Amino acid sequence: MQTPSKIILGIDPGTLVLGFGLIKVENKIISLVDMGVKKLSARIDGYQRLEIIHHFLKELIDKYKPASFAIEAPFFGKNVQSMLKLGRAQGVAIATAISAGLPVCEYSPRKIKQSVTGNGNADKEQVWKMLQRILSMPDKPALFDATDAVAVALCHHYQEQSPVPARTGTSKKQKGWEAFIKENPGRIKNV
Amino acid sequence: MQTPSKIILGIDPGTLVLGFGLIKVENKIISLVDMGVKKLSARIDGYQRLEIIHHFLKELIDKYKPASFAIEAPFFGKNVQSMLKLGRAQGVAIATAISAGLPVCEYSPRKIKQSVTGNGNADKEQVWKMLQRILSMPDKPALFDATDAVAVALCHHYQEQSPVPARTGTSKKQKGWEAFIKENPGRIKNV
Repeated sequence: MQTPSKIILGIDPGTLVLGFGLIKVENKIISLVDMGVKKLSARIDGYQRLEIIHHFLKELIDKYKPASFAIEAPFFGKNVQSMLKLGRAQGVAIATAISAGLPVCEYSPRKIKQSVTGNGNADKEQVWKMLQRILSMPDKPALFDATDAVAVALCHHYQEQSPVPARTGTSKKQKGWEAFIKENPGRIKNV
Repeated sequence: MQTPSKIILGIDPGTLVLGFGLIKVENKIISLVDMGVKKLSARIDGYQRLEIIHHFLKELIDKYKPASFAIEAPFFGKNVQSMLKLGRAQGVAIATAISAGLPVCEYSPRKIKQSVTGNGNADKEQVWKMLQRILSMPDKPALFDATDAVAVALCHHYQEQSPVPARTGTSKKQKGWEAFIKENPGRIKNV
């Protein structure tokens, strides 16, 4: 049975770089739609950066009409100042998604790495290499913010798809791409 | 000469209580339009709270059509966790204003107290008493979040109105309600 295609927008919102990645799931095939970074100059003030995040994400949502929105959200940072700024960037991104009527899901960096590579402590290069195996990825990027954003979109897809067998107590958190591929042999493109 | 009336929306966004206050400036007279708090239950999850903040502020903006939006924004907090949450609440509020095309201005608690009472270390009760002198305020509230929000709206008005004589080096920050009243004897209602 054919299922309608679905686009997932993943973002990795930082205060100076916003990574974004869009994947499409169609007939159990996952493909990359778009990915990139929006750099936010440190020379412009904080409010202008928040405005840029809002307008940039709004354009992405209008252009690709994703069905869901997943965000990489670290829970700890260096200091209260940087966390306030990061929280604002995240808040702006979240409100932009909410105002477009999109459901928002949040994943910690560890959960994303675990889900995509099977290892919660994987580094950015390992995440990128795994994404290359799963999706048609362009060459190694200068910044990993875009691949991180693709990873959060993929993680969201896995989480949505993975049934959680209540009786075995298997946690969604412990399920990675390996379990997913095993359970869904036809779903992954370019493996 | 008659000037068109202008509404300023001030907010004090917390993670559990959102204070709001709207003042109107018409023919140099300042009056209170609305004030209150939106309580955000700790039992509902963080995302639902952010959704509530967004929809609540959007309704306020649609209803009163303010010309500007002022936010009370502390820069320091207890820990990174609480600052991330506070940053998100602020970010959602800011994005809601931006998406409605409103200019956003931010004031620190100290600047607001300084501007409204003339003392940057004033407590919440002193701020409320000063607002009672300046505006037609209802009885002493159970929560000061609403009066704090009215104070930030008033602070924004003072900041917009106060000319800064470049040569004397007088800072906007050092200008309080007393200087404003002295310079604009007709502008304050109920003094």
